[in-house]
Parts: sequence; C-alpha cells; structure tokens
Amino acid sequence: GSELLAHERSKSSVNVDQLSTFLFTSEGLARKRRVLKVLENEKVFDKSQNYFAGRVDRFETALARAKRLRQLAVRNGWSNDDRLIANELISEPGPYGLHESMFLITLRDQGNAEQHEKFLKPAEQYKYIGCYAQTELGHGSNVRGLETTATWNKEDQTFTIHSPYLTASKWWIGSLGRTANHAVVMAQLIIGGKSYGPHPFVVQIRDLNTHETLENIHVGDIGPKFGYNTMDNGYLLFNQVKVPHISMLARFSRVDPKTNQYVRPASASLIYGTLTWVRSTIVMQAGGVLARGVTIATRYCAVRRQFQDRDAQEGQKSENQVINYTTVQIRLLPLLATTFALHFTGKAMMEMYGANQKKMSQDVGKVGGPERGAGPEETHSGSDLLADLHATSCGLKSLASYTAVEGLEMCRRACGGHGYSSFSGIGPWYADYLPTATWEGDNYMLTQQVARYLLKSARSVLKGNEPTNDTTFILTNFLSRQDTGAAFDVLGNDADIVAAFAWRSAFLTFEALKHRDEQKRPWNSLLVDFYRLSRAHSQYMVVKNFYETLQASPSATGLDAETLAIMHKLFRLYSLHTLESEASEFYTSSAVTVRQIQLCRTNAVMRLLEEIRPHAVRLVDAWSFPDWQLDSSLGRYDGKVYEDMFYRASELNPLNKVVVDPYPDSKVLFKKNEAAALKSKL
Amino acid sequence: GSELLAHERSKSSVNVDQLSTFLFTSEGLARKRRVLKVLENEKVFDKSQNYFAGRVDRFETALARAKRLRQLAVRNGWSNDDRLIANELISEPGPYGLHESMFLITLRDQGNAEQHEKFLKPAEQYKYIGCYAQTELGHGSNVRGLETTATWNKEDQTFTIHSPYLTASKWWIGSLGRTANHAVVMAQLIIGGKSYGPHPFVVQIRDLNTHETLENIHVGDIGPKFGYNTMDNGYLLFNQVKVPHISMLARFSRVDPKTNQYVRPASASLIYGTLTWVRSTIVMQAGGVLARGVTIATRYCAVRRQFQDRDAQEGQKSENQVINYTTVQIRLLPLLATTFALHFTGKAMMEMYGANQKKMSQDVGKVGGPERGAGPEETHSGSDLLADLHATSCGLKSLASYTAVEGLEMCRRACGGHGYSSFSGIGPWYADYLPTATWEGDNYMLTQQVARYLLKSARSVLKGNEPTNDTTFILTNFLSRQDTGAAFDVLGNDADIVAAFAWRSAFLTFEALKHRDEQKRPWNSLLVDFYRLSRAHSQYMVVKNFYETLQASPSATGLDAETLAIMHKLFRLYSLHTLESEASEFYTSSAVTVRQIQLCRTNAVMRLLEEIRPHAVRLVDAWSFPDWQLDSSLGRYDGKVYEDMFYRASELNPLNKVVVDPYPDSKVLFKKNEAAALKSKL
Ligand SMILES: Cc1cc2nc3c(=O)[nH]c(=O)nc-3n(C[C@H](O)[C@H](O)[C@H](O)COP(=O)(O)OP(=O)(O)OC[C@H]3O[C@@H](n4cnc5c(N)ncnc54)[C@H](O)[C@@H]3O)c2cc1C
Ligand SMILES: Cc1cc2nc3c(=O)[nH]c(=O)nc-3n(C[C@H](O)[C@H](O)[C@H](O)COP(=O)(O)OP(=O)(O)OC[C@H]3O[C@@H](n4cnc5c(N)ncnc54)[C@H](O)[C@@H]3O)c2cc1C
Repeated sequence: GSELLAHERSKSSVNVDQLSTFLFTSEGLARKRRVLKVLENEKVFDKSQNYFAGRVDRFETALARAKRLRQLAVRNGWSNDDRLIANELISEPGPYGLHESMFLITLRDQGNAEQHEKFLKPAEQYKYIGCYAQTELGHGSNVRGLETTATWNKEDQTFTIHSPYLTASKWWIGSLGRTANHAVVMAQLIIGGKSYGPHPFVVQIRDLNTHETLENIHVGDIGPKFGYNTMDNGYLLFNQVKVPHISMLARFSRVDPKTNQYVRPASASLIYGTLTWVRSTIVMQAGGVLARGVTIATRYCAVRRQFQDRDAQEGQKSENQVINYTTVQIRLLPLLATTFALHFTGKAMMEMYGANQKKMSQDVGKVGGPERGAGPEETHSGSDLLADLHATSCGLKSLASYTAVEGLEMCRRACGGHGYSSFSGIGPWYADYLPTATWEGDNYMLTQQVARYLLKSARSVLKGNEPTNDTTFILTNFLSRQDTGAAFDVLGNDADIVAAFAWRSAFLTFEALKHRDEQKRPWNSLLVDFYRLSRAHSQYMVVKNFYETLQASPSATGLDAETLAIMHKLFRLYSLHTLESEASEFYTSSAVTVRQIQLCRTNAVMRLLEEIRPHAVRLVDAWSFPDWQLDSSLGRYDGKVYEDMFYRASELNPLNKVVVDPYPDSKVLFKKNEAAALKSKL
Repeated sequence: GSELLAHERSKSSVNVDQLSTFLFTSEGLARKRRVLKVLENEKVFDKSQNYFAGRVDRFETALARAKRLRQLAVRNGWSNDDRLIANELISEPGPYGLHESMFLITLRDQGNAEQHEKFLKPAEQYKYIGCYAQTELGHGSNVRGLETTATWNKEDQTFTIHSPYLTASKWWIGSLGRTANHAVVMAQLIIGGKSYGPHPFVVQIRDLNTHETLENIHVGDIGPKFGYNTMDNGYLLFNQVKVPHISMLARFSRVDPKTNQYVRPASASLIYGTLTWVRSTIVMQAGGVLARGVTIATRYCAVRRQFQDRDAQEGQKSENQVINYTTVQIRLLPLLATTFALHFTGKAMMEMYGANQKKMSQDVGKVGGPERGAGPEETHSGSDLLADLHATSCGLKSLASYTAVEGLEMCRRACGGHGYSSFSGIGPWYADYLPTATWEGDNYMLTQQVARYLLKSARSVLKGNEPTNDTTFILTNFLSRQDTGAAFDVLGNDADIVAAFAWRSAFLTFEALKHRDEQKRPWNSLLVDFYRLSRAHSQYMVVKNFYETLQASPSATGLDAETLAIMHKLFRLYSLHTLESEASEFYTSSAVTVRQIQLCRTNAVMRLLEEIRPHAVRLVDAWSFPDWQLDSSLGRYDGKVYEDMFYRASELNPLNKVVVDPYPDSKVLFKKNEAAALKSKL
C-alpha cells in the first residue's frame, strides 16, 4: 500500500500545501494542528473501541469526552473556533451538543439584558445545561402546529406550560434525554384564551443538585437511532408547570405584565437570521463532510488492486489498481470535484450572510427601532438581499446536504466489501451525518421556499422591473433572448457552462410560473416541479460560485499555474457531469442540443476523468484530514490498509475473547468470555 | 392513527386477499401464519431489546436464537421452506447463516458420494458447523487471484493448506468468526509446482469438543460492520496445515492419487448453476425487501399529518396527511409499483432457472458424461438458454438489489425525523440488506457480464443468424426498423411501452458494439457505457415481465377487474416513471420524442399518482407483513404510531435507568445506573 500511494503522489504536480492553504488559510491549518496535538494525548478520546459497546456504555464514554473537552477548552483558553475544530476532529455527537449550539444561541439572540444575566451567564458557565425543545412527537416541520401551550396567568404573572396530548410531547430534542437541566421550550403563547403562536420559554426541568426530574415533568431519552447514538435525544412532557414571567424570551415579543397585552415583534428578520445562519453553516460544511468519504475511497481505491486490465499488454502482468477502472472513476472523481464545488459555494454563502448582517445593522436606526431590519416578506431600502439570502440558504442547504449524503454512500460502496466494515470509517460518519437531510428544514420541503422566491422574482421581472440581483438578472436575460434562442458552447467555453445552467433555471422558473399563474394549478400539484426547479437553481449557484472562485487573480488564490489548471478541470468535471446527469432538463429548455449531451457524456467527461486521475491522491491530500480524525483503515495516509484492518480485527475486537458452544442442542452459549478483560486492558 | 388507516382501507376496493394470494399462493400464506405462531411464543425471539446491546451481547442473543430455531425446526418437522419463512420473520442474520446456506449447498453440489457421507451427513446434523471461505483480505471479486494455496503432497497423499501473505487471510467469511468448526476453503490447487486455479477444500478449524482453534490456524471475527453485527464474519489464516486427499471436493475435478494427475471437470455448468441460483434468489427477494420499507412508509405517511393544504377551502381545516403531498407521492408510489414489478420479475427469473435445470437434465446423456451440460461459453443443442440465464441473473441481480437499497432509504427519509429512529424499522433492515449490492458479484462489475452477452448476441444478429430468444429477437427487430424509425405510443398503449424499452436497449447495444468492434475502443473505456446498457436492458426485462404477468387470463391471476385495473396502473407508473427518470437515453435512441417525455412527466405520471393514491394502504396490506415481522412503530397495521413510539422510548429504553452528573468539572458520570435491572426485568 505504502509504495502505491507514494508512487501516486510522485506522479502529480498538484501543490498540496498551496491548495490546503487556499481552502483553509494557514491560520486554520495551524489551529487544527495545535488542537489535534492536545486531543491525541488524551486517553478518553481514543477511538479504537467506539463501535463495540452498547448504547448505555457509548453514551457514558461520550459524556466523559464532552466533560473533558470542556475542561480542555477552559484550561487552554480555546476560542469558539478552536472548540469547533476539536469537535470536528473528534467527530462524534456528544451530550453537550445542543447546549453549546442552539441553547446558547437562542438565549443570546432572543433574550433581553435581564435574561442574559439570569440564564445566559450560568449557561455559559455550564451551571445550566440546556437544549432546544421545539419539535414534538406530532409536529416537526409545521412549527405553527405545535401543541405545547404556555398560558399567561394574569393573577400571579406566570405562564403555565402544558402538554395537552401525547403528541404534544417534545421529541428528538438533543441533549435533553439525560443531560440537560434546562430547556428552551417552544410553546403556543395563550393570553386571555387567544393564541399568539409559538414562542420560546426557558424552563428548568431537572434539579441542579440531584439531577432528578422536577415535579410534573416527564423526560427521557427517545431510544436508539440509525446514528447519533452518543447523543441523548429526548422527550419531554409538562403537566401544568408554572414558570415566572421572565421565562419567556423577550427580545422580540413579550407579554406586558401591567396590561396583560401581547407586544408584537417589530420585525421577524433576526429570527430568520438564526435559521439562515444554521443553514448556511450546513452548506459551508457539506464539502468537508463529503471530502472525508472521498479521501478514504480515493486512497483505498489507489491501494486496492483487483484483476488485470482486459486489454493489458503481456508486460503489465500485475493487477490493476481499481481506481483505474472507469466505473470506479465515474463514481469517485465527480465527487472529488464536488467537494471543491461545495466548499467554494459554502464560502460564498457565508460571505453573503455576512454582507446581509452588515446591511441590516446599517439599516438599523433608519427604519424603526434598534432591532428592526428587513424581513423576508417586507423588504425595504430597495433591496431584497434578505429574501435572496433566505432562498439561497434553503436551496443550497437542500442540495448540499443531499449531495454529501448520497456521495458518502457512493464512496462507501466504491470500496467493495471492505467499505461495509466499520473500520472503513465511512459508514459511521454517514450514519451520523444523515439527519442533516431532515433537520433545519426537510430537504424536500425547503424547495418550496426557493420556488416561491423564484416565482416572485419572475413576476417582478415580467412586470418590467429592472434586475436588482443575480436572480432577476438571469431571468431578465432569459426573457430577452428567449426568442433568439440559446447556443451555449458548453464543451468549449467555461462561461457558457454557467450560462447554460442559468438558462435552464430561468426556463424552469417561467414554466412553473405559467402553471401557477396562468393555468391556476393547485400548489400541491406543482411540488414536484418546484423540487426540480430548486435543484436546478441551486446547481446553477454552485457552478457559478466554482467558476467565479477560479476567476480570482492568481495572487488571491495563491495557486500555481499547474494546480490552477487542475482546478479548472475539476470545475468542468463537476459541471459537465451534472449537466449530463440532468440532461433532459437541459434539452427541454434548449440550453444544449442532444448531440452536445452525447459528446459531453461519451467524450468530454471521460476525457476529464483520464486527465484528473493522476492527481486524485494529491487532491484529496489537500483536504488535509489527519489520520486521527478519519479513523479509517482504508483511508490511511500511508496506505497500510490491510495491516491496519488485521490489527483492529484481531487485537482490538472483544468478540474474539469469547469461545462459543456452537451446537444447537447445548444450552451453553459462551464457554468462555473474556471480553470485559480486553476492555480494561486497553 | 387507527381511524385514519381504517378510513384509508374503506376508501379502496382493492381486494387484499386476492392480491396476497396471487403474490404468495394460499399455501405460502398459511405457512407464514403457522410458523409465526410458533415464533411469537418464544421469548428468545422477542425483538424489543435488539438495538440497545453491544456487539458481544447482540451476538450472544443471536446465537441463542439460532440454536432455538434449529430445535424448533427439528421438533416441528419443518421443511426448508418453513425454515426460510422463519428466518424472514425473525429478520436477523444469525451465526448459522452460512452453515445453512453455502456450506451445505457446496458440500451437496460439489462433493461426491463418499464426501457426502463423510462431510454432508454430520453437517446436516449440526455436528459439523461450517462456512464458505472464498474471499480474502486482498481478493474478493477476482477469485482467480486468491492467494491461499493447497499443495498436493504425493509422498503422503495430502494437501498442505497455506496462507503465504497477510492478504491471503480469508476475510468476511460468515459464521466463521466464532461459530464454525469446519470451513469450505477455496484455495489455489498446486500439483508438482503447477497451479490449477481455485478449488474447494473442506478443512476442520476448531476442535469438536473444546471449540478451541486447531494448531497452525489463526481465526477470529473481523469486527463491527455497518450492519450484520449479529453475524460473526471471520478471518482465517493457515500455517502449512495438512489435510487428507478426501478434503478436496471432487465431484467435478480432482487429483488422481495414483497418477498425481489433475482430472479436469467435464463442464463448468453446474458450478455456474449455483451462482446463478444464488443471484436469482436475490432477484426473487428484492421486491419483498423493498415492500417492507414501502409498507412502513405508506402507513406512516397516511397517519402523519402536517400543515394544511395551501389551497384548502375554509371547511377543511384539519391538517393534511403527508401522503397527500405530491413530493411524498412521487417518492413512495413509484416504489410501491416497483415492489410488484420486482416480485413478478423474480418469479419469472426463477421459472427461467427451473426451465434451464430441466433442459440440462434432459441434455445429460446426450452429450458427454452425467454431469455434462451447457456452460456459458460452450453452448450447444442450438440453445443459449444458459448464457441467457447467466446474463439475465447478473443484470437483474444488479438492478434489483440496487433498486431495493435505494428505495428503502428513500422510504426512510420520506418518514421525516421519525424515520431516523430505529423504531421506524427501516434503518436496521436497510443496514443488514446493504451488502447484497456488493456480494455475489459487485453490482457494477456484474454489468460487464451483461454487456458481454449482449455484444455477443448482437454480433450473431449482425451475421444474419435467426433470432433464437427474446434478446436476439429485439435486436433483430431493431435492425429491421432502424431506418424507418420508431413511433411508440408510450402514453396510449401498454405494449408500446415495452417496445420502447426494448428499442432503447437494442440501440445501446449496437452503439456499444460500434465502439468496441468498429472503433476498437479499449474495454476499460467502455465500462460506463456497459453499466448503462445493462441497466437499460434489465429495466426492459422488468417492464416486460410486469406486462406479461398482467396479460395472463383472469382465472390465472385470480384478481377481480377492479384490482387488476389498479395493477395495470401500477405497471404504467413503474414504466413511465422509469422512462422519464432515464429520459435522455430514450430520446437519444429516438424511442420517444421530447414532447412525449414532457407529457409523461407533467401529466401522465402525476395523474397516475392521483389515481393510485386512494389504494396505497390496501396495496401495501396485500404484502401481508405481520407486525411482529416489521417490528416498526411507524408501520403498525393499526396505525398506533405515537403510542408505540412513546411506549418503546419510555418503558423499554435502558438509558432512561441512568441518572447522569451533567457538570463538566465533576468526575462522576453516572450518579445512578439501573440499566442492567431493566434488562433482567424484561
Ligand atoms: C437526529 C435528530 C436530531 C434532532 N434534534 C432536534 C432538536 O434538538 N430540537 C428540535 O426541536 N428538533 C430536533 N429534531 C427534529 C427535526 O427538526 C425534525 O425531525 C425535522 O424538522 C423534520 O420534521 P418532521 O420530523 O416533523 O417531518 P414531517 O414534516 O413529519 O415530514 C414527513 C414527510 O412529510 C413531508 N411533508 C411534510 N409537510 C409537507 C408539506 N407541507 N409539503 C410537502 N411535503 C411535506 C416531508 O417532506 C417528509 O417526507 C431532530 C431530528 C433528528 C432526526
Ligand atoms: C457482509 C458481508 C458478508 C460476506 N460474506 C462472505 C462469505 O461468507 N464468504 C465469502 O467468501 N465472501 C463473503 N463476502 C465477501 C464478498 O463476496 C466480497 O466482498 C465481494 O465479492 C466484493 O469483492 P471485493 O470486496 O473484493 O470488492 P473489490 O473487487 O475490491 O471492489 C472494489 C471496487 O473496485 C471495483 N472493481 C473491482 N474490479 C473491477 C473490474 N474488473 N472492473 C471494474 N471495477 C472493478 C468494484 O466495482 C468496487 O467498486 C462478504 C462480504 C460482506 C460485505
């Protein structure tokens, strides 16, 4: 294995360091090295027994790790970025997960000064440990349908939190099952018999000393899952639990205790802000998530040899590396290109988010009070940046997480039988990542938001409004050229590839608009079209971002000519492979001809595979995953695949400390069981 | 939940009993009921704690189950079919899995009379417990590349079995890790320094009394996997282990101990027979495998309500069942159609297998000795049924297992968040089924076999030979009509749908032939085309089988007119949805026009979804899975989804018997741990 990878690395001139630096910056890389050094030396983070234990034991280990990580963060004075890198390196969801994300964020964003003092401060000190309890057994996507109630009692100025039905039970709530002693609970606010929709309440659920559940609260872990088993996702029921007025997070809306009146939020913008930020983060991470699988599969497929090439000459009698088979290449290399495409898109998404935050804070003061900004429905100062941002984050979250999920499984299968072993490192990672396709907006449902935005933009363009952003620009351009037709040279010109993707997206937008506005088709009958539309538009954005990233000046990218040339090929591979996979929308919209698709499929893509193949190993090296993070026999940097598989199976496997009685008529199952002894030895 | 499902069932006139009987025969259904009654009453098969335990404990339970099942089979005089149904109901791979399949089959098919007496008999009595050890750490797909050697020692008429490298270690061998005391070992036969390729040897590996490993053998479990963790897949290394002459299974080829000469097999046909049979079984089962997921998701999506319909009238204010959303329908209903399509194809595949077996036994005696029949390369008596069977089983195995795998995951995701819970019953089932895409021929690699067969058939047709089977018939038909063109009325005529699929397959065949024979392109550069070709041809076969099944006389199907009409709609849904998903190959081949595809996508398929929707629940009922088998909260027949989720989480979940200390600075992890107590209570 080692020689094969060494040889692969010697064949390519891709500059790994330059490319890594371009992806992560040198500070980012240094940070990773620094944090890794700390973690590697802590026995509690040893990964070698991760897959053997039962649920209770795995959770116990995860709790120990979470605690230790917090101690290390304090002791080493880690920044938030340091902590995030540490989590990435450990790669295991843990019991503080939701405390450290949604609980703290919600307290910070939605609490007022008094509440920051009362809740946020002890939470930041881990005296309060919390979770974010929105989803219920009966309602997830439909937040307005939540059944938990918070009824205002004007007599004693309290709220009564109550779960009127079994389906009102909070469910899936991370860190709640066993760990949290507080929860942010989303509940229907009821004042004087009238409902004002879901609002956030901070509720203590367990005793701070005994950690036993408080009275009239029923809480627990929801049980085993496809992955995420080191996290205690929980359920929570309230039987008329009273909480004081301060429990309702009051930065945006509140109940005035003097008048018993509901005070409306000035704007929903900042609330949308959090959701957009969470989705943008998912987009940002998707490239790296997928890159783990691609790194493992690429290295393994360069080490794995199987069969001789059918057309091989007499001389080359050794077995072929499986990465040389075109059916392996067609699975792995477009995914390799996708990792970069997603990474650059994630960066652009984050920049867009930042620009919007800046814009909103500039707008503050101009219109309304200090918290006022542009909501997705009520846009002002002539800009619809926020609506754009909202739709972009929805569409890209859906596409990016879908792509990463599908791609990881594709990588696992490309490894043949050994991909199925947990030691491949792909399966467990996939299983833990999978819910990303469902949470923060189910990937199918989010596409309705994108379609709604595109329809609105198209209506505005049809009215003759000047384009104000990229979306309205491509729609306007489509309209003006619709009758002269498109003739994009997708095989010869990179800018034309981007234009063809824009064309298809605009075409589908106007088709959908026709169905809805002219033919008055019901919304529900168009959901499938909307899904396709959102996918098409999001793919356009990815292609565009990849293209623009490579247009930056050489000094901005810091890449030498050879490395940049390979990146251009990866751009073409991602784009043309996507184009031919989605071929039918491209013809139907007349963006390309049937002949172009055929040439793309049989010539262009196949040639790109051949051209990129020699650089595959160095390209994945640029993602710079330490072995400790990958925890994979197949993906080892040094290629010692078989040695590592064998060592893990024979030396670290507790099942081998058991001797069975194999005969059906004997009641004895294990004649000998020294599995526990191995565990304590390690 | 209950009322919703009752309402669903009352709305549809699909005759569930008729359809079940058509699928499984009344004997099949009775058998299932009878076996279920036995299993349900055995505490050891209780499934409620399946997902909590660690690997060692899960394996122990699986061993207890395997033993008990064998006892029950003996006590109740179960037939092989009874045993298979029992395994299906239990739905968990177990430590006797490979003993009861490949070990016994290989001894039976490849052993001679003396070997049957010596090995098969004790194996059938579970005195010998065995496995099938072919794959090695370094070689799986490429069987000729195996490195384990079996060297003939003429001095003492023994073989020396040896593993010369680490990569020669047997790997992945089911039932080997802890359970088996014997193995059929595939090893390179070497006589007088010359290698004769891989042959099967029966080798004892553990002591029959102590079950300790025999000398010079290194054996163990390979460790945790993505699924299949109740099975002890193992590794095995030999250090110069001597076995007697009788150990080499000698029905086909053998070493003559007098002359020390290798005796060649008369024909490879029966060996191919076993592989074909195993693949055919996979095809046969794929419909049912997928139907489990479809049953669960369909029932749950009929119970789950979320949001009001956007265009709903004032009156209908209750929330919409999610199965009413077209983005849910487009995922589930084509899969529902697919379950039937695969089931009928599996039946046809099995009939084809049976016909071939019959033909081969007729041929016996005509040509050569008693074991002689037509091998896939050397066809005779004018028939290429065996070659056809081989290619068909390869193509369909690849397509069917791929479809089932992808479909199960699609079903899981359609269930939103709750699909991720193990209590959905889909995830664990999916994880255990997954290796079917890899074993018995990796799904990508098998497609080369199909392409090779189609190219051969096309060459024969081009030479002007008369068509001898369906494949050569459709190729001939294509050639004759190629210049007049096709005009298939896929939206109006069912037979034309089948013809369009045939056309596309024939078109791709001749394209591939042109690349290979005219343009002399390297084999490796065509693998991606071959993959597409195999997929296209296999989809044609599925469409054709579905169509033909419904053409049978009403008395043969036993279905009333209404039920049959729905089945026709399912046929169209499967076919047209496949057609539009693979649209580009259909235009490129001119089998259909762009306009037809558009109409198919936006009209025909959407209308079929609407028409089939009311029957969805009854259609899945016809698959007649008992709740005990599904073991799913979401898929319960009575729709009590939430009650069951809650019960399992709160009452059966050992993690809830633990009280943690949540603070990072405290060394205590669990303040209280009564998890073990719950287990013993249950
Ligand atoms: C591992 C994990 C951790 C989680 N952690 C948390 C947490 O910490 N806190 C928290 O509050 N929640 C959490 N959740 C819950 C998560 O946010 C929800 O599961 C998610 O929002 C999906 O909602 P749902 O389950 O209600 O899906 P559903 O809405 O029930 O979806 C079911 C199906 O219906 C479809 N559907 C529903 N409505 C429509 C519509 N209008 N149009 C078309 N199709 C529709 C969906 O596409 C899907 O196929 C977690 C979930 C998981 C899996
Ligand atoms: C759960 C499980 C149970 C098993 N049980 C048994 C058992 O009981 N007994 C036993 O003997 N074996 C068993 N196996 C092994 C199984 O049969 C092999 O894993 C399988 O045949 C795949 O072979 P491989 O792992 O060598 O894949 P590889 O051949 O290494 O495949 C790796 C990649 O290379 C590609 N590739 C390889 N060769 C070519 C080519 N010529 N052209 C194009 N692409 C190529 C493949 O498509 C794949 O993407 C089991 C495997 C699993 C996962």
